[in-house]
Amino acid sequence: MSQSAQLPIAITMGEPAGIGPDLLLRLYATREEHRLPPFIVYGNGDFLAARAERLGLRFDLGEVAPSEAAEMFANRLPIRHVEGLVPDKPGDPSPLSGKVVIEAIAAATHDTLTGLCRGIVTAPIHKAVLYTAGFKFPGHTEYLAALCATGGQTPLPVMMLAHQDLRVVPATIHVPIADVPGLITFDLLTRTGRIVARDLKSRHGLPAPRIAFAGLNPHAGEGGAIGTEELGVIAPAIRQLVSEGMDVVGPIPADTLFHVPHWRTYDAVIAMYHDQGLIPIKTVAFDEAVNVTLGLPIVRTSPDHGTAFDIAGTGYGSDRSFLAAIRLADKLTRGI
Amino acid sequence: MSQSAQLPIAITMGEPAGIGPDLLLRLYATREEHRLPPFIVYGNGDFLAARAERLGLRFDLGEVAPSEAAEMFANRLPIRHVEGLVPDKPGDPSPLSGKVVIEAIAAATHDTLTGLCRGIVTAPIHKAVLYTAGFKFPGHTEYLAALCATGGQTPLPVMMLAHQDLRVVPATIHVPIADVPGLITFDLLTRTGRIVARDLKSRHGLPAPRIAFAGLNPHAGEGGAIGTEELGVIAPAIRQLVSEGMDVVGPIPADTLFHVPHWRTYDAVIAMYHDQGLIPIKTVAFDEAVNVTLGLPIVRTSPDHGTAFDIAGTGYGSDRSFLAAIRLADKLTRGI
Repeated sequence: MSQSAQLPIAITMGEPAGIGPDLLLRLYATREEHRLPPFIVYGNGDFLAARAERLGLRFDLGEVAPSEAAEMFANRLPIRHVEGLVPDKPGDPSPLSGKVVIEAIAAATHDTLTGLCRGIVTAPIHKAVLYTAGFKFPGHTEYLAALCATGGQTPLPVMMLAHQDLRVVPATIHVPIADVPGLITFDLLTRTGRIVARDLKSRHGLPAPRIAFAGLNPHAGEGGAIGTEELGVIAPAIRQLVSEGMDVVGPIPADTLFHVPHWRTYDAVIAMYHDQGLIPIKTVAFDEAVNVTLGLPIVRTSPDHGTAFDIAGTGYGSDRSFLAAIRLADKLTRGI
Repeated sequence: MSQSAQLPIAITMGEPAGIGPDLLLRLYATREEHRLPPFIVYGNGDFLAARAERLGLRFDLGEVAPSEAAEMFANRLPIRHVEGLVPDKPGDPSPLSGKVVIEAIAAATHDTLTGLCRGIVTAPIHKAVLYTAGFKFPGHTEYLAALCATGGQTPLPVMMLAHQDLRVVPATIHVPIADVPGLITFDLLTRTGRIVARDLKSRHGLPAPRIAFAGLNPHAGEGGAIGTEELGVIAPAIRQLVSEGMDVVGPIPADTLFHVPHWRTYDAVIAMYHDQGLIPIKTVAFDEAVNVTLGLPIVRTSPDHGTAFDIAGTGYGSDRSFLAAIRLADKLTRGI
C-alpha cells in the first residue's frame, strides 16, 4: 500500500435523524471483517457517541486531525468534530441540526480539496429541514459543486450510478417528465458526455471509455416516427463528441440497451431522464448501487438511498450501498 | 388432458421476410423435446415448405382444418393455407406478401373467435410494408381488436408484457415522451386498470389481482414537487378503482417498484409509458418476455421481438420468447 493510501476517506454524518449515522457506525464496528480503509467522520462527536450507544455498539470515538486518523482507525473511530446542537431523535428531523450537517459537508470538502483526505463519502441528508435551517442549494451535489468552485467557476456536477462494471448517468434528474424534452439540449448532452469521458479516463482506469446514449423516445424515436429529439438533438450531440475523438454511440432504444450483457459492452450509458437510468440500475442492484459525482475536482461517492426515517436508530437497514460507496471511493483514490 | 385442450393454438406466420417463420418452423421441429401443445399455422403453405427446406428442417406439412390439426400434429405440421404470392426472400420484405400476412391474421382470429382454435400466437409483422399493401391499422394489436369488434363496439386492447410472475402494462405505448403527460388521463388509467383486473381474474388464475401503478415523474412526483400528474390524475384514478372494489395501490416511484422482490408482490404493474415498463422487463428477461393482449374476447400472445431481418432465414435467433408465447397461450387456454 502506498503511503498516500493512508490518507483517510472523509465521511459526512448526514441527517442525524436518518439512517446515515447508524450505517457508518455499524460499518466502523465491522471494519476488520470488511477490511475497510481508514476513514474519519465529519460531524458532532457527542451525537455520534450517543447514537453508537443507542445501537449497542461498543467502541471508542476520538477527535483527531485528518493526518492522525489512519493511525487511530484500528482502535478508535476518528471524528472531526463539528460544534453545535444535534438532538439524538431518530426519525424526527429538526432544523436545529442543520448547522452541523451543513458545516460537516463544508469541512469534509475543504479537507479533501486541500489534500488532507483522499475523497469524500456523504451520508444522506434531508433537504426540507436544511432549507428551514437556511440551506440555499437545490441538493447535496450542487452544494458540493459550489464548495469546489475556483476563480468564480462552479463545476457542472454529473451524477453517475454505478454497480460493478454497470454505470449509468441520467442527463436530467429531478424534473417532471413533461419538462425533460425541453431540457435535453445539444449543450447539456455534449457537456455531460465530455465530463463522463474525462472522469472515466482520469479516475476509473478506463483509458478509452466507450459510452452509449439512450434514446429519449420509445424505440429511440424509430427514425423520427415516434419523436424528433433523437434526430434533432441526441444524434448531433453524439456526432460532436465523436468528432472530438470520443468513443460514443447511440441513440440506442432504452429497453434493449439495459439488458445486462448489452449494457456491459459500454463503460457508461447516458440516460435522458431519472427513471430511464434508475429503473435498470435498481432492478439489477437494488441496495448495492453507488452514487458517484463526476465533474468535481475531488472524488465523492454516496450510498444510493435516502434517510429512511422509519428505521433510523433501530439497527435495521441495509449497509450494502454505504459499504459499496466506501469501497468505490477507496478504489478511485488509491493512486492519490 | 381435457378434450378441449386438443383444440389447436393458431399461429400466424407473420412477415415472411422476417424471423417469425423460422422460429415457428424450428419450434415445430423440436415439438417433442419441448412437449408443445398442438398448433396450426395460418399462412402460405408453399412458402412455409420452402422456408423449412432453406433451414434444413426435415418434416412434412399438411393442409388441414383446425378440427383435424391436433391429430396431425405429431406427424406433420398442420397448415391453414392462405392463397397468395409470398416470395421466400429473407430480409427483403415485399408488399406482395401483404395480402397473405393480413388474411392469415384475419382467418386465425376468426377461427379462434368461433371456437375452432383455443387462442392465437402471432409472429411479428412489418407494418411499413403492410401499409403499402393497404393495411389501415396503427398496428397488429389494433387490427386484432377491430377483428374482434361486435355490435359496432371495438374492444380496447391492452398490451401486457409477462415473464413468469412478473407482469407490466404500459398505459401508453408508441408515442413520443413529450406527448405522454397529456395522454395520461383519468379515463385511460381507469379503463386500463379495469381491463387488467378483469383479465387477470378471468384468465390468469388470479381471483383477487393486486395491481400497482407507477408514478409518471421521478420519485412519483415527491408530493407535487416534481410534477403534478400523480396528485391530479394517477391518485384519483387509483381511488376510483379502489372504490369499485379492486386491489390497486400507488403511484409508486418507478425506480424502486421494479426491483424484482418488490415487483413480485404485485400481480401486475401499470407503467405510464413504453420505456418505463419495457426497460425492467427486458433487463430481467431479455429474450423470454411474452406480449399478451388483454381486453380481447380471445387469448392472444406474441413473442416480444420484431422481424429481425438481419438474421431471417439463417437459422440464427433465439426462439425463447416465441416458445414462451406458445406456452403462455397454452396455459391461459387450458380451461377452454
